[in-house]
Amino acid sequence: MAEHTIKAFDLEIGELRGLISEMGGRAEAAIEKAMAALVRGDTKLAATVVADDAKIDLLETQVEKLAVRIIGLRAPMADDLREVVAALKIAGVIERIGDYAKNIAKRVNTLKEHRKIEAVSVLPAMASIASGMVHDVLDAFAARDAEAALRVCERDREVDDFYNSIFRTLVTYMMENPPTITSAAHLLFVAKNIERIGDHATNVAEMVYFAATGNYMAERERGEPAYGTE
Amino acid sequence: MAEHTIKAFDLEIGELRGLISEMGGRAEAAIEKAMAALVRGDTKLAATVVADDAKIDLLETQVEKLAVRIIGLRAPMADDLREVVAALKIAGVIERIGDYAKNIAKRVNTLKEHRKIEAVSVLPAMASIASGMVHDVLDAFAARDAEAALRVCERDREVDDFYNSIFRTLVTYMMENPPTITSAAHLLFVAKNIERIGDHATNVAEMVYFAATGNYMAERERGEPAYGTE
Repeated sequence: MAEHTIKAFDLEIGELRGLISEMGGRAEAAIEKAMAALVRGDTKLAATVVADDAKIDLLETQVEKLAVRIIGLRAPMADDLREVVAALKIAGVIERIGDYAKNIAKRVNTLKEHRKIEAVSVLPAMASIASGMVHDVLDAFAARDAEAALRVCERDREVDDFYNSIFRTLVTYMMENPPTITSAAHLLFVAKNIERIGDHATNVAEMVYFAATGNYMAERERGEPAYGTE
Repeated sequence: MAEHTIKAFDLEIGELRGLISEMGGRAEAAIEKAMAALVRGDTKLAATVVADDAKIDLLETQVEKLAVRIIGLRAPMADDLREVVAALKIAGVIERIGDYAKNIAKRVNTLKEHRKIEAVSVLPAMASIASGMVHDVLDAFAARDAEAALRVCERDREVDDFYNSIFRTLVTYMMENPPTITSAAHLLFVAKNIERIGDHATNVAEMVYFAATGNYMAERERGEPAYGTE
């Protein structure tokens, strides 16, 4: 690496990756804090998740400005252009992942009296897989590792299985405990938000795969249904 | 207009606007068809909404390619650059609006036996406001009309009011009719999807406002809480 000539473009791409990485770290932390707040009924912690989301939004704006500047000034070609566009899109998706964590955090106050509903104890395990997907897909982006991106997609099935199981558990719980239906409905949305985080990590994996290989994962996927991500 | 010299940039921007407009028209149609399918229990119509979503996704890819080409080749400055970036982001949001319509369509089969739940009759009115917002915000984009974009944001409150009312109606219905809880839970998600479409139209309005004025709507919003959109 020492003899490699660092161009302005490489420095800027490095800066772009750094911003994306910071966004990802903050989104992961937001998911974990939101779940901890939910399980403990900790409204103060939930409030920090809501407040910190503004920082993720700000980072997205920075990624956008930098990506546009790079494209405008450097007119990157092929691989480099794909990477800059991927960064721009990935930032948009991470911003949404942050929104899902914020949305979970906002329900903590409503749910704090009903933390005994059994689904509450299962949700953190589901969230943990989803936030692990977010973590690993950003590592895959940093390393331009298409195979690692594929492995992230495979795990979305676990998140979906959790979701389907929690949906059924909650519906049964509602039938047996009508007075808790409002809380259980909020928990359905929490489960749905986590499921969507998994979907979004999968979308990022598809972008990483495309940025790294120039091929759409879907083309490969058709022959390998194990990577089904719909 | 006849004496105005048309530059390559203007032509390309026109093409970009045309693609966005087509995406928006398709997203609006998807919302309306999904709701008609839901109300009538028409699974065939629902299937066309799911199938047609691929076309919206394809248009997003075309917008992305064209926007990147314009930025790379023409290196647009200030107002022009803001418009190209807005187009890129708006396409991403419309793609998601299409996904929400598709998600509603996918629930039609599960819900077709429970079309008598009273919330089903209220949902189309709610969806109609949301799809009207999508329509008007794209007109605002085409006309670079910041004031029209602000008016779109104001209507998000109506969509939110509908959502809160439907949420309460469905929870009450669940308590009184435990055997229909699964269907009512799916309807909660349909209502949530429509509420999200309203939020996304609001996000587009913010982008249109920024593209047209160079200022963030939020800055103006602070002094005028009537435009609150969080």
